[in-house]
Amino acid sequence: MAPATRRPPLRTAIATVCISGTLEDKLIAAAAAGFDGVEIFEPDFVMSATSAPDVRARCADLGLSIDLYQPFRDLDSTDPDQFARNLRRADRKFDVMEALGTDLVLVCSAVSPTAVDDNGLIADQLHQLADRAQQRGMRISYEALAWGTHVNTYERSWDIVRAADHPALGICLDSFHILSRGSDPAGIEAIPGEKIFFLQLADAPLMNMDILQWSRHHRLFPGQGRFDLPAFLRHVLAAGYTGPLSLEVFNDVFRQSDPRRAAVDAHRSLLALYEWSVGHLPLDRSGRSDRVPGGFAPPVPDLAGFTFAEICVDDASAESVTQTLSRLGFAHTGRHRTKPVQLWSQGAARVLVNRNRRADPTDPNGSVGAGVAAIGFETADPTAAALRAQAMLAPLVPRDRGPAEADLSAVAAPDGTQVFFCRTGADDATSWIGDFADTGQAPVPGAGLTAIDHIELTQPFDRYEEATLFLRSVLGLEPEYDLEFAAPFGLVRIRSMANGAGSVRIGLSGSVLRRSGQWIPGVVEPQNVAFATSDIFAAARAAQAAGAPVVPVPANFYDDLDARLTIDPDRLAQMRALNVLLDRTSDGDYWHFYTAVLGGRVFFEVLQRDGGYRGNGELDAPVRMSGHRRQRIDAQASGPAVV
Amino acid sequence: MAPATRRPPLRTAIATVCISGTLEDKLIAAAAAGFDGVEIFEPDFVMSATSAPDVRARCADLGLSIDLYQPFRDLDSTDPDQFARNLRRADRKFDVMEALGTDLVLVCSAVSPTAVDDNGLIADQLHQLADRAQQRGMRISYEALAWGTHVNTYERSWDIVRAADHPALGICLDSFHILSRGSDPAGIEAIPGEKIFFLQLADAPLMNMDILQWSRHHRLFPGQGRFDLPAFLRHVLAAGYTGPLSLEVFNDVFRQSDPRRAAVDAHRSLLALYEWSVGHLPLDRSGRSDRVPGGFAPPVPDLAGFTFAEICVDDASAESVTQTLSRLGFAHTGRHRTKPVQLWSQGAARVLVNRNRRADPTDPNGSVGAGVAAIGFETADPTAAALRAQAMLAPLVPRDRGPAEADLSAVAAPDGTQVFFCRTGADDATSWIGDFADTGQAPVPGAGLTAIDHIELTQPFDRYEEATLFLRSVLGLEPEYDLEFAAPFGLVRIRSMANGAGSVRIGLSGSVLRRSGQWIPGVVEPQNVAFATSDIFAAARAAQAAGAPVVPVPANFYDDLDARLTIDPDRLAQMRALNVLLDRTSDGDYWHFYTAVLGGRVFFEVLQRDGGYRGNGELDAPVRMSGHRRQRIDAQASGPAVV
Repeated sequence: MAPATRRPPLRTAIATVCISGTLEDKLIAAAAAGFDGVEIFEPDFVMSATSAPDVRARCADLGLSIDLYQPFRDLDSTDPDQFARNLRRADRKFDVMEALGTDLVLVCSAVSPTAVDDNGLIADQLHQLADRAQQRGMRISYEALAWGTHVNTYERSWDIVRAADHPALGICLDSFHILSRGSDPAGIEAIPGEKIFFLQLADAPLMNMDILQWSRHHRLFPGQGRFDLPAFLRHVLAAGYTGPLSLEVFNDVFRQSDPRRAAVDAHRSLLALYEWSVGHLPLDRSGRSDRVPGGFAPPVPDLAGFTFAEICVDDASAESVTQTLSRLGFAHTGRHRTKPVQLWSQGAARVLVNRNRRADPTDPNGSVGAGVAAIGFETADPTAAALRAQAMLAPLVPRDRGPAEADLSAVAAPDGTQVFFCRTGADDATSWIGDFADTGQAPVPGAGLTAIDHIELTQPFDRYEEATLFLRSVLGLEPEYDLEFAAPFGLVRIRSMANGAGSVRIGLSGSVLRRSGQWIPGVVEPQNVAFATSDIFAAARAAQAAGAPVVPVPANFYDDLDARLTIDPDRLAQMRALNVLLDRTSDGDYWHFYTAVLGGRVFFEVLQRDGGYRGNGELDAPVRMSGHRRQRIDAQASGPAVV
Repeated sequence: MAPATRRPPLRTAIATVCISGTLEDKLIAAAAAGFDGVEIFEPDFVMSATSAPDVRARCADLGLSIDLYQPFRDLDSTDPDQFARNLRRADRKFDVMEALGTDLVLVCSAVSPTAVDDNGLIADQLHQLADRAQQRGMRISYEALAWGTHVNTYERSWDIVRAADHPALGICLDSFHILSRGSDPAGIEAIPGEKIFFLQLADAPLMNMDILQWSRHHRLFPGQGRFDLPAFLRHVLAAGYTGPLSLEVFNDVFRQSDPRRAAVDAHRSLLALYEWSVGHLPLDRSGRSDRVPGGFAPPVPDLAGFTFAEICVDDASAESVTQTLSRLGFAHTGRHRTKPVQLWSQGAARVLVNRNRRADPTDPNGSVGAGVAAIGFETADPTAAALRAQAMLAPLVPRDRGPAEADLSAVAAPDGTQVFFCRTGADDATSWIGDFADTGQAPVPGAGLTAIDHIELTQPFDRYEEATLFLRSVLGLEPEYDLEFAAPFGLVRIRSMANGAGSVRIGLSGSVLRRSGQWIPGVVEPQNVAFATSDIFAAARAAQAAGAPVVPVPANFYDDLDARLTIDPDRLAQMRALNVLLDRTSDGDYWHFYTAVLGGRVFFEVLQRDGGYRGNGELDAPVRMSGHRRQRIDAQASGPAVV
């Protein structure tokens, strides 16, 4: 690897094909997200009413360099007439590039039936093209498509570029084309850095499918898939590559999403990748290096656990939330000194109930009821954690702060959830708990909830990757597992993420495809705040005695459980009586019960983990959803009620 | 094949797993769609709060038989203790079946690591199970899963059932498991019909992917995919199978769609499959056999072409539609005698403009502007065509009819579009044109539009299969090709359907995934009524002279066209001047221009086909969409306007 002192400054770029909109929309989004440059994807330009000189001026105004024009397809040909037509086509494209003010074009390996299979002839034809380019002050970057007719590995494309031996001809490396075929990227280090004219980065999930379809539909931004891109990038940098890190991601979702939001996600992915690869992220790009020793972003924070979950309620949902907390053994222990916020506590489990319901405009259910609005995380250095979050493009949340109130650092997650970094025991400005006046109330004995075990946040199906990257890069949570299961109203996708210590677990959940909104017969995608206990049956008895709205579990379910598993009859009878569920795996047991959906879109879970059980009991979600549907039907039948 | 006279009556069933909802929702939907019976999918029952006796009673009330309880997994085992536990589990399930009042259970081949590979041992274990079943008056239907550890072909499952030789043991055939592996279904005819205990039917698209994922996510109802199910069913009937035709379709979309609508789609698929397979569809199921000779549904109609497209307009959009028609050379030739409907004509191209805008409640854009509300098709026997549509579960549209007005038969397509069957030249009650009083106006000379060439209807991404089956089974249109292309605001999917004569072409188009609704920056999914001409340049000149709102095509586009194709310079100059586009394929040329989006969600296209060109010029849609976006931005900037 090249020593850090000789590394060129990080420059980032994005191919316009990655995001949605007209060319004009895309340029604005790329600039706003902080990219240094763009690759102009030819169809975006062809469909645009903006002339090449005007595109050049627009980019200059936006502070964007045009790093590449792409793609030029099917240059080489065994048919001389066709090759002549291809050179004519290239000349026309050089005209466009000249007007755009860019000097580098991507030529990808041919996929046509007349593609050349002879390295010498391909090199000769590329050499001819490079001659014409050089005469106009331009350069050719040759890329092996993974599905090229004959040239489909970077090794072969490099053999050809080396054989052509032309100063205006270099290679383009694309992580997808290389890693999707299982090529060993270590060989990149043998390529002279100055012959690597361009670098395109894309991640992807591992999929057992046609490679072209995989590439065209399922690429992801770095850090969202399963490729080892940090290692890949290290090889490229070790080779001496000095150009921009540029994204080329074809993804059905990103192509139809708001480009302003997608561009931020995209840029975050390059910052995170650079840090994972190189070991640090310089902050001078964002002008904040003076606040941090060494000028680098602080590392991901050590999170000791959840400080609190903040649930916003409206007038209609407030009582159902607080009454349920009370019946689960929580006490209203604190009252915010200046805001309509209550602190409910039991052990280290804390819930803030905020009557200032802030509707999330991105949430289709956001206009009603209660929901998780914020999550507090316990960490030793909240300031550093917030600074890192900002370096990863998380916006600071502007807050009204009363005199003498804690200077809480909060950033916004992409889904609108606010993220607070807290030091509960601290004696300084981060001690948020001093903002609450003691009410003198204490929890009811016997419920025994000890902490927030995990929180499950509902995500639209097309926001999983963005949420994953945020949680990875800002909070240091890593994907533990993905699940997909059939529930009464459709398939549900789960991604569980946790930090290395296992002290913070967040689940992302939602339908696998966006619904039409015409058949959502229950509250099918509520959020879940799950509390740990060391005695699930005691907790369930206390909840039942207090009248907590526990989800009833059908007798059919217990009959099936009894057919499948060996459970002590007395224990099974207890489960039936208390609506306690069991998820048993070879690692251990997960015992739990759920509450009704409270005021719209949040419910609580109480759970006990036995043995080495991993997971969050997700496979019992279908029976919970059926129960929620029945509770909703009952509530509608009986008029307004707590549920 | 068994002679038709000995064929048992058609009985239809559906596995509850096919559709969305709780068990209770599913039973209601299946009954409402006309199914005779159901397969109870175990998880649906396990999650239900309805006891087995109550499910039995519910089904009886709904007129549904319970034809199967399924699935029982992983019976056979090399581990004797495990096998003993499996028999205990089966006994519990027999208890459930007894209470449900069903006698048939599906046992699928084992997928566990301890699955048995020895046919004799599997037969022995199945024999033991069949003994226990027989003692309780029950039967076992054994099915080879395509991904079974060892048993994964119907041939092997039949070998095992034959070896076990037990009267309470038969085979279950599933078209997906058989056809997905490429097995030859002809061998089914060698199985004695009485040993085929059950038949499950599913279609699928041809996909190059993991077979388990293919099965779990992408199955379709018969007629919606690419399997040759009519031939498959003929083999099964030829073997002497007398049980129900039952659907087992795992599909991500159907599982989250409104079950009432999905069940109708499902039932339609079985009726169509039966007809395709057997050659006729008995109507006595629907009680209408007295109206049709022989008691069979009439065949698909011969459609000679489009009679008209009916566009509903609101007050804001009416002028932009009629003004554009006028500028394209249409004349307001007729006025409906009793309704606020205008007939606009030019040659055989006819557009009805209806001021009674009927908002389509299923259409997210339905609340604004203009849209295609109805399509008239020219056919010799409108009554038979409408009767057939009803036999295929298309609802008749109730219509207000004035005295002496035509008795137009209209049915509703699943997307709400009304389908009229017409005989324009007829002198009888089907002569709809007599309902219009002649205005005396004539088309402007020179525009030269001759007919409706095709209509493109926007579909939500999850309605393609339902629309396809409707167009196949009701109108006799067959899928010609599917396209997927990148457009400015996301990928677009196109399915083109046409009748055998090529006289009726309908395109289905839309985004590949449902959008969030937050980034739909133009009118990205409007409908298109496309008119044919024999002289595109004359038509374009006339339109330009009349001031029609033609979509401007960027100079960049023509520059690229010139780089790619060989086009005569004068011709290219004409194209630039008139905004005419060209889609050139090896079959021929397609010349065309588009109008602006008119009042919300419809635009017109004018086209000329040269040579053997097939297709509808879809690949030029991205430049059209960019143009529509610019027109919209311009219109917003300049305030209310025609566009």
